Amino acid sequence: MNVKERLADYAEMTDEGLEKYLAKVDCMQKSVIDAARYSLFAGGKRIRPALVMEFCRVCGKDPETALPIACAIEMMHTFSLIHDDLPCMDNDDMRRGKPSCHKAFGEATALLAGDALAMLPFQIIAEAGLKQTLPQYSALQIIKLLGELSGVWGMIGGQTIDLQNENTKPDASVILEMYRMKTGALLEFCCKAGCIAAQAGITKQVAAGSFGQRLGLAFQIIDDILDVTADEGLLGKPVGSDAQSGKYTFVNAVGLEKAKLRAAELSRQAKEFLAEFEDNEFLSELCDLLLERRF
Amino acid sequence: MNVKERLADYAEMTDEGLEKYLAKVDCMQKSVIDAARYSLFAGGKRIRPALVMEFCRVCGKDPETALPIACAIEMMHTFSLIHDDLPCMDNDDMRRGKPSCHKAFGEATALLAGDALAMLPFQIIAEAGLKQTLPQYSALQIIKLLGELSGVWGMIGGQTIDLQNENTKPDASVILEMYRMKTGALLEFCCKAGCIAAQAGITKQVAAGSFGQRLGLAFQIIDDILDVTADEGLLGKPVGSDAQSGKYTFVNAVGLEKAKLRAAELSRQAKEFLAEFEDNEFLSELCDLLLERRF
Repeated sequence: MNVKERLADYAEMTDEGLEKYLAKVDCMQKSVIDAARYSLFAGGKRIRPALVMEFCRVCGKDPETALPIACAIEMMHTFSLIHDDLPCMDNDDMRRGKPSCHKAFGEATALLAGDALAMLPFQIIAEAGLKQTLPQYSALQIIKLLGELSGVWGMIGGQTIDLQNENTKPDASVILEMYRMKTGALLEFCCKAGCIAAQAGITKQVAAGSFGQRLGLAFQIIDDILDVTADEGLLGKPVGSDAQSGKYTFVNAVGLEKAKLRAAELSRQAKEFLAEFEDNEFLSELCDLLLERRF
Repeated sequence: MNVKERLADYAEMTDEGLEKYLAKVDCMQKSVIDAARYSLFAGGKRIRPALVMEFCRVCGKDPETALPIACAIEMMHTFSLIHDDLPCMDNDDMRRGKPSCHKAFGEATALLAGDALAMLPFQIIAEAGLKQTLPQYSALQIIKLLGELSGVWGMIGGQTIDLQNENTKPDASVILEMYRMKTGALLEFCCKAGCIAAQAGITKQVAAGSFGQRLGLAFQIIDDILDVTADEGLLGKPVGSDAQSGKYTFVNAVGLEKAKLRAAELSRQAKEFLAEFEDNEFLSELCDLLLERRF
């Protein structure tokens, strides 16, 4: 099975799981469920779920074991996109070529849909622990980790730093710390949680987390680079949008060449951490795909 | 110890717990922590934490056991207030006599502070389970219950129904269902989770949950009644604010007299469920205090 086939498999499993965890229901609060589902099924590539399930697999367990976590993290990611797009944040009318959640459902419903998608992940993982699909101790570890890496010490913290630095020119180190929290933290979660689900030892957990963090940082820097250098058709979004929205990126802080070197170095580091895992071809190729944006 | 003294004790324990779980820290994302703390320490009466800890006590365990849950639910409640006050929701500039969170910190930071306060509760309960302060199975049960009663089938669902019925005249049954989810669900959580923390049996859990739900409903109906009948100085907020904001309440739907009868009946039912618990004087008196608004 090549990397795209396995990715497609994981995406299908994720879609089926999400369909089960947040089913279309006819009830008085239907609109909030519809809004959450609208964003959840808006064409995400399900990279995060794939990382969760693949790390579970390379640690020797059936990837299905990690499916609740895979669905949970896709919900958490979607919550962050919905709230990020709101007028008081990035005020984006479009997301993945469709009207953003608040454009389609109104601001209040989008706010509540995001809220719901921030809470459901914890509930799903707890349920997996209660049903013994996941070991109880692992479920609690994963819930704690999800809270840490999504909250003020992770993703939310990164978004806050981003907000605070609007219209300023922060140091490269501040930008990297912001990327680490805003993008790296959830990827770190995916990789680590997959290992915990498989009850892998601490060495594997740490290596996986470090891989995810480097991958996230490299991905974000490459995003900055492409915003300057890419062909618009290949990028799938307007080139130069960072400059237009007044975003001061890592490329602005250190220049294009140094940014390219740093991305390459992070990518090399990420792959080194994969040495801890056997049968790591998929992860290595996924890393290439993501960083070279070949899909 | 009379009811007000015990309430004050619980409030002090809660404040100390919250101070520990969300300490003032000097970091780059300081503003989101400051905003969350601003609302968390804005003078709430800590009723929900008191219910959690007292149900744990009447089930035979040290109330301290339930402190992580008590702090968690106060955070969840505060999150709902911050998001409820946002311009796209109720657009309230003031809360408890102070500028609301978004007035004090800006909309984006308030949004993120609310998000953080919606996630931290799950993390805190998971940590208590990992540290064995709470039994692991109980911790998972409580996390699942918190997700259910806060999310689309609980509080968020109730807020959605409320939104959808703006500027309409819903049936009394719809209004009650909305109150049950919007206000009753979190109180149900408090009472039930206190029992689960004490590893009480299912009969006690169900009775406690039913007590909390009835208490929440009665409280909300009395809120509607006072909005029509109260003396402004005693109420602590402008009389007639529901009518002014176009809210169609249970009193509007069934009339003042029937609303009073329903509140009395719900209050009677709530107290009946307390028969399941020995040493229930505090709960019974707290119920009176809350419903007669004597504090």
